[in-house]
Amino acid sequence: MLSPPPYYPHVDEERASYTGSSSDEDDISPREKSQTAGDGFTDFCIKNVAQAAFGRREIEIAEQEMPGIVALRKRAAEDKPLRGAKIVGCTHINAQTAVLIETLISLGASVRWAACNIYSTQNEVAAALAEKSIPVFAWRGETEEDFWWCIDKCINAENWQPNMILDDGGDATHLMLKKYPAMFKLIRGIVEESVTGVHRLYQLSKQQKLSVPAMNVNDSVTKTKFDNLYSCRESIIDSLKRATDIMFGGKQAIVCGYGEVGKGCCQSLKGLGCVLYVAEIDPICALQASMDGLRVVKLNEVIRNVDIIITATGNKNVVTREHMDRMKNGALLCNMGHSNTEIDVNSLRTPELTWEKVRSSVDHVIWPDGKRIVLLAEGRLVNLTCSSVPSFVVSISAATQALALIELFNAPAGRYKADVYLLPKKMDEYVASLHLPSFDAHLTELTEEQAKYMGLNKAGPFKPNYYRY
Amino acid sequence: MLSPPPYYPHVDEERASYTGSSSDEDDISPREKSQTAGDGFTDFCIKNVAQAAFGRREIEIAEQEMPGIVALRKRAAEDKPLRGAKIVGCTHINAQTAVLIETLISLGASVRWAACNIYSTQNEVAAALAEKSIPVFAWRGETEEDFWWCIDKCINAENWQPNMILDDGGDATHLMLKKYPAMFKLIRGIVEESVTGVHRLYQLSKQQKLSVPAMNVNDSVTKTKFDNLYSCRESIIDSLKRATDIMFGGKQAIVCGYGEVGKGCCQSLKGLGCVLYVAEIDPICALQASMDGLRVVKLNEVIRNVDIIITATGNKNVVTREHMDRMKNGALLCNMGHSNTEIDVNSLRTPELTWEKVRSSVDHVIWPDGKRIVLLAEGRLVNLTCSSVPSFVVSISAATQALALIELFNAPAGRYKADVYLLPKKMDEYVASLHLPSFDAHLTELTEEQAKYMGLNKAGPFKPNYYRY
Amino acid sequence: MLSPPPYYPHVDEERASYTGSSSDEDDISPREKSQTAGDGFTDFCIKNVAQAAFGRREIEIAEQEMPGIVALRKRAAEDKPLRGAKIVGCTHINAQTAVLIETLISLGASVRWAACNIYSTQNEVAAALAEKSIPVFAWRGETEEDFWWCIDKCINAENWQPNMILDDGGDATHLMLKKYPAMFKLIRGIVEESVTGVHRLYQLSKQQKLSVPAMNVNDSVTKTKFDNLYSCRESIIDSLKRATDIMFGGKQAIVCGYGEVGKGCCQSLKGLGCVLYVAEIDPICALQASMDGLRVVKLNEVIRNVDIIITATGNKNVVTREHMDRMKNGALLCNMGHSNTEIDVNSLRTPELTWEKVRSSVDHVIWPDGKRIVLLAEGRLVNLTCSSVPSFVVSISAATQALALIELFNAPAGRYKADVYLLPKKMDEYVASLHLPSFDAHLTELTEEQAKYMGLNKAGPFKPNYYRY
Amino acid sequence: MLSPPPYYPHVDEERASYTGSSSDEDDISPREKSQTAGDGFTDFCIKNVAQAAFGRREIEIAEQEMPGIVALRKRAAEDKPLRGAKIVGCTHINAQTAVLIETLISLGASVRWAACNIYSTQNEVAAALAEKSIPVFAWRGETEEDFWWCIDKCINAENWQPNMILDDGGDATHLMLKKYPAMFKLIRGIVEESVTGVHRLYQLSKQQKLSVPAMNVNDSVTKTKFDNLYSCRESIIDSLKRATDIMFGGKQAIVCGYGEVGKGCCQSLKGLGCVLYVAEIDPICALQASMDGLRVVKLNEVIRNVDIIITATGNKNVVTREHMDRMKNGALLCNMGHSNTEIDVNSLRTPELTWEKVRSSVDHVIWPDGKRIVLLAEGRLVNLTCSSVPSFVVSISAATQALALIELFNAPAGRYKADVYLLPKKMDEYVASLHLPSFDAHLTELTEEQAKYMGLNKAGPFKPNYYRY
Repeated sequence: MLSPPPYYPHVDEERASYTGSSSDEDDISPREKSQTAGDGFTDFCIKNVAQAAFGRREIEIAEQEMPGIVALRKRAAEDKPLRGAKIVGCTHINAQTAVLIETLISLGASVRWAACNIYSTQNEVAAALAEKSIPVFAWRGETEEDFWWCIDKCINAENWQPNMILDDGGDATHLMLKKYPAMFKLIRGIVEESVTGVHRLYQLSKQQKLSVPAMNVNDSVTKTKFDNLYSCRESIIDSLKRATDIMFGGKQAIVCGYGEVGKGCCQSLKGLGCVLYVAEIDPICALQASMDGLRVVKLNEVIRNVDIIITATGNKNVVTREHMDRMKNGALLCNMGHSNTEIDVNSLRTPELTWEKVRSSVDHVIWPDGKRIVLLAEGRLVNLTCSSVPSFVVSISAATQALALIELFNAPAGRYKADVYLLPKKMDEYVASLHLPSFDAHLTELTEEQAKYMGLNKAGPFKPNYYRY
Repeated sequence: MLSPPPYYPHVDEERASYTGSSSDEDDISPREKSQTAGDGFTDFCIKNVAQAAFGRREIEIAEQEMPGIVALRKRAAEDKPLRGAKIVGCTHINAQTAVLIETLISLGASVRWAACNIYSTQNEVAAALAEKSIPVFAWRGETEEDFWWCIDKCINAENWQPNMILDDGGDATHLMLKKYPAMFKLIRGIVEESVTGVHRLYQLSKQQKLSVPAMNVNDSVTKTKFDNLYSCRESIIDSLKRATDIMFGGKQAIVCGYGEVGKGCCQSLKGLGCVLYVAEIDPICALQASMDGLRVVKLNEVIRNVDIIITATGNKNVVTREHMDRMKNGALLCNMGHSNTEIDVNSLRTPELTWEKVRSSVDHVIWPDGKRIVLLAEGRLVNLTCSSVPSFVVSISAATQALALIELFNAPAGRYKADVYLLPKKMDEYVASLHLPSFDAHLTELTEEQAKYMGLNKAGPFKPNYYRY
Repeated sequence: MLSPPPYYPHVDEERASYTGSSSDEDDISPREKSQTAGDGFTDFCIKNVAQAAFGRREIEIAEQEMPGIVALRKRAAEDKPLRGAKIVGCTHINAQTAVLIETLISLGASVRWAACNIYSTQNEVAAALAEKSIPVFAWRGETEEDFWWCIDKCINAENWQPNMILDDGGDATHLMLKKYPAMFKLIRGIVEESVTGVHRLYQLSKQQKLSVPAMNVNDSVTKTKFDNLYSCRESIIDSLKRATDIMFGGKQAIVCGYGEVGKGCCQSLKGLGCVLYVAEIDPICALQASMDGLRVVKLNEVIRNVDIIITATGNKNVVTREHMDRMKNGALLCNMGHSNTEIDVNSLRTPELTWEKVRSSVDHVIWPDGKRIVLLAEGRLVNLTCSSVPSFVVSISAATQALALIELFNAPAGRYKADVYLLPKKMDEYVASLHLPSFDAHLTELTEEQAKYMGLNKAGPFKPNYYRY
Repeated sequence: MLSPPPYYPHVDEERASYTGSSSDEDDISPREKSQTAGDGFTDFCIKNVAQAAFGRREIEIAEQEMPGIVALRKRAAEDKPLRGAKIVGCTHINAQTAVLIETLISLGASVRWAACNIYSTQNEVAAALAEKSIPVFAWRGETEEDFWWCIDKCINAENWQPNMILDDGGDATHLMLKKYPAMFKLIRGIVEESVTGVHRLYQLSKQQKLSVPAMNVNDSVTKTKFDNLYSCRESIIDSLKRATDIMFGGKQAIVCGYGEVGKGCCQSLKGLGCVLYVAEIDPICALQASMDGLRVVKLNEVIRNVDIIITATGNKNVVTREHMDRMKNGALLCNMGHSNTEIDVNSLRTPELTWEKVRSSVDHVIWPDGKRIVLLAEGRLVNLTCSSVPSFVVSISAATQALALIELFNAPAGRYKADVYLLPKKMDEYVASLHLPSFDAHLTELTEEQAKYMGLNKAGPFKPNYYRY
């Protein structure tokens, strides 16, 4: 029997753990229940199909904020570019991904869907999907065994030979690869959106174990900018406000790391009147910070003076106990990077320090002399814990995923080999163009003469691959 | 018997109505209870003195964010400039005002305190005050009759001839003036911080009924900037995020009114990537908007295109039903001005429109064709309803009030007549200086030679009265 | 005979000394020449009437950038609100003031005009005025005796009893007051626009010597904002670029003084990526700087590190030799304040320091160890020396002056006494409104109902006098 | 005999044509002169070696603003990494490139140098180089025949087999390739910095004619950002101010093209209070503009309203006669893109339009109805014509070129093939690090543990090649 791959932490885990208790739900496992949707459909396993109406409402609200994916649905509804696609999906299950799932179906695909995280399923949304006769296997609070059972139900079903995988973290891919290798060989393409999943795909590729083309949609331009720069520019402020009611004007803050996330944080904090410092290891990013009017320092130089410390490096132990020992009373400490390693929170779990939980995601850590620092989300991603990701950002990701599926499913033989690819720039541009109408932005078209002068196709792509935007 | 003055709407009313239910509290009126604080003190009337510890904790947290008032407490603790002052206080009662009250006492004053609003009292804070033997008469959910009874208890008590009034809305002033005119004659000064209360004082003055000096602290420079420009710059973003999870980047917004509040809103929205329009009636403010890079338009010109409509005029019917009929689907509408009149909400209460409450302060108003606009706080002040006022802003107000009391109480005879005064600039500057250390800001001192050259006193005031900052 | 009042330094003096030599002009004093304009007009004294065509061209270009004054000319052309006004004018004489002069005439006034500064006259513009039969007495490079002679010619002429004075510095006012006291008594109003002139008027008023109403247009809102905040925001950058080709990005700069000028400097330098510090004596302005995200320091704290030092205080010896001894190699030092006192330039004229003139307004001062600092304009106003004042800014001043003349000339008896007044807010607003069309800014009008609610006249004024904008 | 390749327009051409006349120089061709430098050196051909002292002064001033290249000189002075390198150089010859040339020599190289442009040589700088016994062949105002003769003198000399080429435009490369193919085979590497030269190299490579490795330094990250984003952010303002004294506040401007140059222009114009529009063909860049708060429109939509039109696309006929016919009176039109094609200036040379030269680089084009538009630099690059490139920007380029030479010269056999390469990221990062000290920026170093966690070398490179910064 298959020994499951080690469990990967997924971004929403922290957040899910704070949202709502299950006290009002019964304790019977969905796997032991027998439920039937309105039209007699039973090929699903969720918490409670009776919640469908509430979930449908959530999906409808999400659609209003996801102009790109909805536009795609409309534009391609007649073409049905996914007719014949049989997709195993394994993602978070919430109102926004439901919009994606229903879009894939309206483009012609058949799907079976599981959750990529044991905590993040919105049960009412799963109910709404089931009510629409979509085979969905997911609920909040799955056990690890449940988790793999659900994915298995999506891969292995009667009269079902999947030909595409849409994955977020790589679990569906790996389960199929290990448990159903013959089935895996018939897959035409994998679309993967997470850092972790992409990493695993590149490793498979290196090890020559990847027998199908895969698309890394995590690093497409449009998605990257929205997931990092634009989204974090707003969520850093939103998170800190909701968690602490802090006033930003005049506060001194240091942002560790001046990548896209760090740039986003600095932009908005500067706009609200913070005095900003940046710590960087990369001289190019450090030079960018300088040219943006930010002082580049080592954390040590300002640690005694700053009011807010934000990590956005992707590295570990960027803020150490030594730093925290020197922070000033009331200093606010949080992490915007990609994991929970940036702040050495474990070093704070020592007898001489007192932890005082002020709110669900806010701890005061108190030194013997009375100094306290305010630690948010126990060092996990503060924007996922203390604020929410706007549907618009998800719309970008979802459109990217849908286009990657269309591209891989329809690509002529030979265009893609058994390797990991970035989304073609033209499709990246298409995702962007789908979202322009919501800003009432009017694109200029090249004339024939201009296109010729530039050596460009009028429909794009418009930039060389190394272009940095 | 006194017929109570017409009830004045107070700013926190809207907010209070959404915070917490009274379901977990017993229903007996405080006036019918007999309570005793720890040391046998009984001269108070509050909900439940047993909540004192929790309230004390809130006060301590607030103190950490109120550097100015705490600094004043320390600096003046030995002087006791309010020794002999007997103050009738009538303000909101919450953690921040508790810091003010306890500061006044530590500066030498005796006080008796009531609430200026029937909804806004934090019961646990009132308990903490009572536990410290401070005569406080206030609870959340007073009847109007309770309201006046409480104020009366602060004015009229045994062995108590008050000589100062600290008022927020003018109710204590008016009650004393009408019901206890002899007592009122012995008052040495009134400090009033609200727009409403100041308006009432100016009217009294015009009618020659004001027999004591009063200080309008509402219009001091420091307080005005923090209450309006700096505070709203942050709260507009915070309110909209908390209420709707909106993404600001690329959104088109119009701000009606380019006074301090409007300027603050524009600054932060621009910083987050909104495309901004301003509507103005005053050509000077319109010119300022132009020079700040904002398009000045009539609301009608852009109403079909904007995603966000914010009112900040202080006027009425700035947004009419006609405007709302033309707004686009999903448009978000809110009020940052000083009352609930700016948006003609009543015009939306017609049979053909459907109201759908999405969250406590968020309504969708739906037109017959399906168009919906998102109305926040039913047109009341969105920043008070959907976010919170930072303690730092209250610290500025509180320090201003305390200094005004000190000034009026200690002023030599003749300095102030029976009129309404602005806070002397020197004290305005002092309030500012009390808050500089929290920004680690280091003030430069004039040399003797420089002071002489400028014709200034080295200790200030530094500007003529008409200076605009 | 009249002993002339002490000579007052005027703002443009420094600038004039650098603009153009007189080498191409003959050396005969205009007073000894006999010139006749095209239509036989001879009541003028200027350098060379033959330059009129070139001057006319300059005036026409200036008109294009002075929308406000030109609009006023058009709107009031039929009313002729200055019919009967006989104005003695004493201002700089350049293309922009020529637009003002010709506007006054087209509004009905008779004028006689002299220069307020011996260096600042544009001879070709004076020629263009003379060619239009305007009595003008001014040339570049007057002697001090010429200076008073010219003003005298404007006051004392045949068939000429002036009734208004438009002054810039107070010289015309004082000459008339002292030499022609009887004539002065018949004056209906004085309009004065300079700091110096206003100061002299207030002193006269204090000494009870002012027998006519005077209007201080220097401190009107619109003019102040444009002369200081908006104009300096651009000219600081322009001046430093033209003088030194400096790259701003990443440079550390300190601005001494955070008034309107300092605020303007900081805004644009921040926008170009400078790291900024502010030095302040006034705690309110210091708090504003903090809330705007700027570090408030004493000059001493950062003097070793900053690349750019800008003074904007109006005070003296803000930058001392001691400071300059500690500046780093290559530091750039300049003055944006109101006089040449802010930097102690004299302290640099010592034997051990070498001065090296790099360009006309750029000196390198070199220390014995080779360190050099870059001193601009020898410590005088760098924006007047190294850049130019946009016509748009002058348009605001000119419109303000014209309206002040109209107001004083037409005011019913008793409205103004023999005192110094600020421009009525309504007129300040009118000046602003005249300039809105050039930004395509559309003002909103109050409804009757709204005006009533606010207690305002629909035509303004819209704010109380103490409003700070 | 070699027929010279078609003449390529080089960026500085426009600028050079306006800087200074040659009236004070004699008219004898340098090729007919016999000159000897101080120490008997005669292997050069320049205008006048007697100007050496003035040129040396210029070089010394430039060194102060070129911290990176000077730091490199110091750090590598002992290593002499270019010992044995024999470099044919063909670049602009001015104070900044002189600093580069002398740095290469101090790193061990022998050089021979010619100009890449017939107008751009600073004669006094060439003199200073000759005086230091550097073989330099260049003067301002070469004929085309001179141009090729000079390059030839650098390639073909006694006892001189060059092994490296530093080229700007590709002329030295092509002359050697065509005329001295045997010599070309012995070249170890070519470093090329211009768009044109890089384009030619890629074409050679495609045609299999490139027999040596070449490095495209034009597209290194650091150089690109400084040449485009950071430099243009400042020069757009500087150029327009110097050319027209325009006031930016409140002006409406459209920037065509939102690449690095367009982004730079928008940033600074927004910072000075302009209302901005962007025109784009690329949906990704258009989305970026939207998220930066800029309205994305077609030029046609706003052409009647905007005050300033800026092209930054690299395309042709972006602004057509039709557009210009519709511009408003006084509209200001200029080009920041890479050539002189963006504005269809030729379409303005028709009989019904009048051209009026206002200053050397400012033309008013006047329509029959009197409307005039202000055309800068006749549509050529306005920042090169009307302002100057800061030495700091050149320091980045120069350091990049020097490092590319070091890399190619020292690379072990096989690292580079006969192809065109981008500068290795590690060297790109090194260039950045050389410039950090001038901003007092302090880089953080990875700990061993952190480097391992990230899978990075502590010394870099720190990012994957596709990273977008």
